[in-house]
Amino acid sequence: MPVGTAGTVKGTRFEALEADDLDARIILGNTYHLWLRPGIETIRACGGLHRFIGWERALLTDSGGFQVWSLGKLRRISEEGTEFRSHVDGSLRFLSPEVSMEVQAALGSDIVMVFDECAPGQATIDEARRSMELTARWAKRSRERFDELQRDGGDLGVMSGAKSLSGAQALFGIVQGASHHELRRESLARTREIGFDGYAIGGLSVGEEKSVMWDVIDGVMQLMPADQPRYLMGVGTPEDLIEAVARGVDMFDCVLPTRNGRTGQAFTSRGKVNVKNAQWATDTRPLDEACQCSVCLRHSRAYLRHLYTAGEMLAGILITHHNLAFFLDTLRHVRQSIRSGEFPKFRREFIERLSANGE
Amino acid sequence: MPVGTAGTVKGTRFEALEADDLDARIILGNTYHLWLRPGIETIRACGGLHRFIGWERALLTDSGGFQVWSLGKLRRISEEGTEFRSHVDGSLRFLSPEVSMEVQAALGSDIVMVFDECAPGQATIDEARRSMELTARWAKRSRERFDELQRDGGDLGVMSGAKSLSGAQALFGIVQGASHHELRRESLARTREIGFDGYAIGGLSVGEEKSVMWDVIDGVMQLMPADQPRYLMGVGTPEDLIEAVARGVDMFDCVLPTRNGRTGQAFTSRGKVNVKNAQWATDTRPLDEACQCSVCLRHSRAYLRHLYTAGEMLAGILITHHNLAFFLDTLRHVRQSIRSGEFPKFRREFIERLSANGE
Repeated sequence: MPVGTAGTVKGTRFEALEADDLDARIILGNTYHLWLRPGIETIRACGGLHRFIGWERALLTDSGGFQVWSLGKLRRISEEGTEFRSHVDGSLRFLSPEVSMEVQAALGSDIVMVFDECAPGQATIDEARRSMELTARWAKRSRERFDELQRDGGDLGVMSGAKSLSGAQALFGIVQGASHHELRRESLARTREIGFDGYAIGGLSVGEEKSVMWDVIDGVMQLMPADQPRYLMGVGTPEDLIEAVARGVDMFDCVLPTRNGRTGQAFTSRGKVNVKNAQWATDTRPLDEACQCSVCLRHSRAYLRHLYTAGEMLAGILITHHNLAFFLDTLRHVRQSIRSGEFPKFRREFIERLSANGE
Repeated sequence: MPVGTAGTVKGTRFEALEADDLDARIILGNTYHLWLRPGIETIRACGGLHRFIGWERALLTDSGGFQVWSLGKLRRISEEGTEFRSHVDGSLRFLSPEVSMEVQAALGSDIVMVFDECAPGQATIDEARRSMELTARWAKRSRERFDELQRDGGDLGVMSGAKSLSGAQALFGIVQGASHHELRRESLARTREIGFDGYAIGGLSVGEEKSVMWDVIDGVMQLMPADQPRYLMGVGTPEDLIEAVARGVDMFDCVLPTRNGRTGQAFTSRGKVNVKNAQWATDTRPLDEACQCSVCLRHSRAYLRHLYTAGEMLAGILITHHNLAFFLDTLRHVRQSIRSGEFPKFRREFIERLSANGE
């Protein structure tokens, strides 16, 4: 899922997301950011997030839990919820499972995430247990408030005329427990006991070692229900995606393609290309000769380097587009290779090619 | 002509320029900027400006004369040419009629402008005469060097496979003379004596009163050859374009649609809309209800205001797109109304509508 934090996948027009070379079926919006700005009253007045931003395809919203947790010293967590200061205007705000469900109902996203608490990657087992148990209680409160809102028609996502949108929201649970296998297992069991439409692994890619991340994924993935979507939150590089798919993950979100696109770093089938490098000054090849995206079909590394060096907006726009195309196309190939039984071969060749350093 | 200073119409993909709602047939590149960065050797190595930027439609390049003149104290003008310091790396550079023609041949633009000198809007008649006479001598030198380069195959603009591109460059002369009618007339006569493919009015919109600009245009336009393109450089607002067309002008370039797009100001058929205004916070109308551009068909004022307020790139991208659509569509309507004999009616109604203040 491309990340559309504030109701926009940064630097990318919706027409580009819908075009054949990207064809993104779902994007992510951040509850925290949209709640603070433009605010729920504005989005409600405009008929929900789909209508507000002009996007008829699917939307997933996170719960705001991770964002307020990331505020560090600026937030205070209690049993009831999290109190924090808005980064926009400094006002004191309060986010809880109930508020998060209400906000996400007003946004009308197709997939709603429970309000969770994240423990640091290096949390002790006691800290991690306390956090995991809080997450379990919050998951239950999220589920209850969500169900009430669905009954009462709180969901604003219904779009008349949209082909692909039911308007009925789905709710995903989140497995926490830091790097501790027994906590992860317990978290998954308690989350499944409540019952959700899909299950996510949270609290990874938050500063822990890569080996710890894979250890946790290995441990928990085999217990995740295979007949429901399994979503690894906030991960990752192209290598990470392939390795996570090999372990059973179905869904991802990550800012890498868009954030790195704006800082001049392209992902290609032959590894990363730093667009700023002087070696591309007169290189008329595209970013990725194996790529059929509209940027690679039209523009050279030399031109992209010039745009980046001159500080032109178009640099970020074009590199972001290519990066999104590369990520989305990679996962299209993953799905094809799974269907044709050739995923192991695809995985081996894909990882091998990435080591070519963009040459 | 949308302005593509450094080889990009800021914030706009070429696919958008080519789409039906914009359908820009020609864009402008700045010789000064492209010469300094990425430099002519780079563009030459990439096969000329069309290939370098990935644009097969027409390109006009200015001569660099106006840009180096704008440097003020940072440049020194002599009979031979203009010495100045690069704003990119501080290096000492020298631009002359010959160098400008060589650079524009290497760029391979379809329309080349002579290297001219501009007098300030309030120049005394002596200053303005000296400047106009220098421009006349530089025009002759431009013509001579241009003709040599065309004979010797210096033009890099030939694109095999491009339908709309001949590769043979056209050269336009520029009429100077500040606000003095007799100097403008003499400048035009001397420019026509040399002979060019088109004629431009330069040295307007450089700080003089609007009434002075119209007075000069009124005086000189009736003497411009009507069977060749007449190009008013660097002008202007939608009102200016209509009023200039009424006086016989055929071509314009202006940064207003793109620059104002990036600062949140939209041009509409009912006047300017300042996207930042709080009054649009929940306004679900498009920027311009009379506009059929892809932005107006999809996005509301409320969303554009949110994007601008949140500092999102997409704000500038979308408002720029709408502004370009509005300018290009206005001139399409102008051409239709001229063909159908209804330009006076169109002019009256267009100007009337602009006074609605965006409501």
